Amino acid sequence: ERAQRVADMMGIGELLDRKPAQLSGGQQQRVALARALVKEPAILLFDEPLSNLDAKLRLRMRGEIKRLQEDLGVTAVYVTHDQVEAMTMASRIAVMNYGVLQTYGAPSQLYDHPDTLFVAGFIGAPPMNFIEASFEERDGGFYLRSQALEIRIPDERGALAKQNNAPQRVIMGIRPEDVTVVAERDGDFRAEVYLIEPLGREDLVTFRSDDEEIRALVPAPFDGQIGETICLKLDKEKVHLFNPETEVSVLRSGNGGSSYH
Amino acid sequence: ERAQRVADMMGIGELLDRKPAQLSGGQQQRVALARALVKEPAILLFDEPLSNLDAKLRLRMRGEIKRLQEDLGVTAVYVTHDQVEAMTMASRIAVMNYGVLQTYGAPSQLYDHPDTLFVAGFIGAPPMNFIEASFEERDGGFYLRSQALEIRIPDERGALAKQNNAPQRVIMGIRPEDVTVVAERDGDFRAEVYLIEPLGREDLVTFRSDDEEIRALVPAPFDGQIGETICLKLDKEKVHLFNPETEVSVLRSGNGGSSYH
Repeated sequence: ERAQRVADMMGIGELLDRKPAQLSGGQQQRVALARALVKEPAILLFDEPLSNLDAKLRLRMRGEIKRLQEDLGVTAVYVTHDQVEAMTMASRIAVMNYGVLQTYGAPSQLYDHPDTLFVAGFIGAPPMNFIEASFEERDGGFYLRSQALEIRIPDERGALAKQNNAPQRVIMGIRPEDVTVVAERDGDFRAEVYLIEPLGREDLVTFRSDDEEIRALVPAPFDGQIGETICLKLDKEKVHLFNPETEVSVLRSGNGGSSYH
Repeated sequence: ERAQRVADMMGIGELLDRKPAQLSGGQQQRVALARALVKEPAILLFDEPLSNLDAKLRLRMRGEIKRLQEDLGVTAVYVTHDQVEAMTMASRIAVMNYGVLQTYGAPSQLYDHPDTLFVAGFIGAPPMNFIEASFEERDGGFYLRSQALEIRIPDERGALAKQNNAPQRVIMGIRPEDVTVVAERDGDFRAEVYLIEPLGREDLVTFRSDDEEIRALVPAPFDGQIGETICLKLDKEKVHLFNPETEVSVLRSGNGGSSYH
C-alpha cells in the first residue's frame, strides 16, 4: 500500500518497467525518491531532491513529501538552497553560510525573529529592507533615526535592545509587507516612488528618500506615479535591529540559546 | 554620465580593466548587459539576461533595468521563463506555450483576467486552484457545483459565461489568496486540512474534500491542525471559468481581441 501510494504520488506508475536510460533526469529523480521513501528507513537524508523538477511538480512534491514524512513519522534531514522549500517543509531550519551555522529554529521563529542579518535577508521574499540608523534613548523613549526618517519604537523593544548593548549605530530591518502607504498625517516619512513592479495580488514599490531605498508591498493596483512623493508608515512592532559589527540581532530575548556565532 | 550610471548600477566599475577570462559568468553577463544599455539603441533585445545571477542581484538588476529602460524610453523585448520577471518588468506580456502565443496583455490583465487555462496556471505563485464543476442556470441565478461545493456566482459573470457559450462542464479557477477560512455559518464548503506550509507572512494550507484539493493563503500562524475540518469561503468576484475542451476562459468580455488561439 505504501509502495502504491508513493508510486501514485510521484506519477511514476507507468515508468516501473523502464530502464534508467529510458528515463529523463526528472523521472530518475522521482524514482530514486520513491525508492528511498518506500524502504521505511529510520532516517531520511535529502540533498536538494527537487532541484531538477519543473516549478509545478516541485510544488506538488514538496507538499507530498512533507505530508508523507509526517504520516510515516520518519526523521528527515533535508538540504536545500531554496529558502521557500526550507520554510514550507521543515519543523526546524538550520541556516548555514559558508559552512557556519547561523541559526537553528522553527520557520516562524526565523521569519519573525531572525537572529542575524544574514538570516533576516535570506528568509522571506521580497527580502527585508535594511537601513542604517542611529539608536537613541531620550525622554524615556527609544528612537531610530536615519537620513530619511525618525521613528519611536515600542518601549519594550527599545529596552531589550539597550539590554543587549545595542550600539549607537545600528542596522534597522523592516519587511516590505510591514511598510504601508498612508495619508500625510499618519506617515513616518515621505519618499519618492522610484519603481513599481506588479506581482499580481500586490505591487512591489521601491521608494527613495535621501539616498535611502525602501520597498513596500502595496495592494494592486498601486495608484502612485514614478517621481511622486508619498507618505509611508512602518509597523513598529516589526522593526528589527542588528549590530553592524557582529551582524547579530539586538532584539533577542533570553540567553540566545537558538543562535550560534 | 550614462556610462557611469550603468557601470555603477551593475557594480562593474572595478572590472573594466579585466579580460573576459578573468571574469566570472555572472560578471561577464553584467558587462554584456552594460555594453548593450550604454549604446543607446533603438530597440533592446534581451534573452534571459539575469538567469546566471544570484537571487539578490537578480532582484536588484530587474528593478534597475526596468527603471533605466523607462528613463531611456527605449523599447525592449525581453525573453524570460520566470513569470515574476515578466510580471514585474513588462508593460505588455506575450505568453508562449510550445511556440503558440497564448495571450498578450498588461501584467494586471493577465493576472486578473487570464484568457486561457495555461496563462491562469502559469502566472501567479502559488498557482491558481482548478476544480472541475458543472455550470448551471436556475431560478434566475448561476451556480457552480463540484463534488465538494456549490456556489452562486455573481449574475453578470454568469450571464457573461452563458453568452460565451460556457459548456455544462467547466473548469473553475480560484487563486489561493481568494480562498479564506471563515466561521461555520459564512462558509461555502467544509474541507479537511491536509497540509500546512509556512511561507513567513502567510501559511499555504492545502485542504481536501471529496478528493478535491484546494490551497488557501492564510495569515500566519494558521491555527488549524492536520485532519481538522474547516469552513472555507471563495471570493465569488474572483472565480475564473474555463472551457475544458478549448481551455479558453468563458469570462472574456468584448471580442477577445487580446487573445489568440
